[in-house]
Amino acid sequence: MQTETLKKNERVEEVFNLFIKHIQGFLQEAKLNHEEYTNFVDWADRLGRKGELPLFADVFLETHVLRAMYTDKPGTQPSLLGPYFVENSPKVEAKDGDAYILTQRPDEKGEIMYFKGNVSSTNGKPLANTKVEMWQNDASGKYSSFDSDAPKYNFRGHFFTDNNGDFEVRSIVPLPYSIPTDGPTGEFLDYTEQHPMRPAHLHLMFEAEGHETLITQVFFEGDEWLETDVADGVRLDLMTTLRDENGVKKAELDFVMREEN
Amino acid sequence: MQTETLKKNERVEEVFNLFIKHIQGFLQEAKLNHEEYTNFVDWADRLGRKGELPLFADVFLETHVLRAMYTDKPGTQPSLLGPYFVENSPKVEAKDGDAYILTQRPDEKGEIMYFKGNVSSTNGKPLANTKVEMWQNDASGKYSSFDSDAPKYNFRGHFFTDNNGDFEVRSIVPLPYSIPTDGPTGEFLDYTEQHPMRPAHLHLMFEAEGHETLITQVFFEGDEWLETDVADGVRLDLMTTLRDENGVKKAELDFVMREEN
Repeated sequence: MQTETLKKNERVEEVFNLFIKHIQGFLQEAKLNHEEYTNFVDWADRLGRKGELPLFADVFLETHVLRAMYTDKPGTQPSLLGPYFVENSPKVEAKDGDAYILTQRPDEKGEIMYFKGNVSSTNGKPLANTKVEMWQNDASGKYSSFDSDAPKYNFRGHFFTDNNGDFEVRSIVPLPYSIPTDGPTGEFLDYTEQHPMRPAHLHLMFEAEGHETLITQVFFEGDEWLETDVADGVRLDLMTTLRDENGVKKAELDFVMREEN
Repeated sequence: MQTETLKKNERVEEVFNLFIKHIQGFLQEAKLNHEEYTNFVDWADRLGRKGELPLFADVFLETHVLRAMYTDKPGTQPSLLGPYFVENSPKVEAKDGDAYILTQRPDEKGEIMYFKGNVSSTNGKPLANTKVEMWQNDASGKYSSFDSDAPKYNFRGHFFTDNNGDFEVRSIVPLPYSIPTDGPTGEFLDYTEQHPMRPAHLHLMFEAEGHETLITQVFFEGDEWLETDVADGVRLDLMTTLRDENGVKKAELDFVMREEN
């Protein structure tokens, strides 16, 4: 234990020292004068006090962490966890035929969508009994527990793949989403001349024994914000096509999880 | 006005883009995995929500801004403004002989000190009627308006130099100061194995027509924390010697302000 603690602290020390080194690099290259420094710290202080730091980090930085970790590795590419994940979502029991019905209100608005997929391993085998955690926004484009006044776990839940690694879930078509623009993150977008939009997406997290947890998202062909996603979360292997079958929307995508080292 | 606004926004955009670029450099070099990223953002979020971001920035970053701006330039070196400056301090009227008496309670504890100085220009001329803003901690080592329960402007005030650019002020000997250690900034100090101490110092800000505002500090020979000041604010030309004259402490230092371009 002693060694483990020591090792962990050394790593934390290394990370913090690198953080300071690179921030100093920023200050040197930007050649901030004292007034600009004060203005910058004031902005960062407002960002922090408003609780927007995780939002800012997840939108502008998380994608770089993921790319650095996973590019050129086998298996489905991860995408942002993002700031809207909520722990302890309910286990989904309700079904519509073979499809789970993602947690929602009886009178839920939105365009019904059936989404199905298969989960397999980089070793080629299907992954039965994989925990599939799913969350998304509602027909008003908002997330429960955050900007929506829906119940805490609305459009949040988890279920498990069957013996073939398959799953199907009934939900609604998610909508493009504007990250909050009324605070310091919005100021940043204004200053850097970026729009605040993310393309419509489903959030998915997969957990299977002996495999790395896969946190990712699913995007839809034709969405106008795919190319300029403010959070840069789109990956080619996370694209699906929304089909119309007799007036019902359907989509599917398969996922490949990496074996743990 | 249009041009001015545009110019300002371009500069802000440049600064923000450089910030993101260097943070990305940090993420790349530190090779954070997703759990480390989440832990780091959690720390930054707690730092921000607690309002410690200006403290953190002023202690660990401000000195680098100042060094980059002022090293090898004529005039007295600046030092940190720090997070404990309060605007609109009272004009000091009370005098003890020629010395102003810095705002304090009637029964103020601490070792009385007379501090005097001269303010001149890099062009060689004395600067009469220069506004001298001064703030420091009290005999409990705390700052009014922050960790001390003294009145808001205790040991905070401003006065003006005489026709020769001279000033004298009666105060108390300031004490070495521990920055707050009970929050995320304290965690950072623990992780990076740094003590939280600053050597005893006076804060001074000088404003004179036609000259750049000089924000600086005065330190005392022999202080045990000079070499390892957590905020790295000590400069050789900001050192004074605390003398004992018949049981009364006295110190002095002259200041040279830079002409505006």
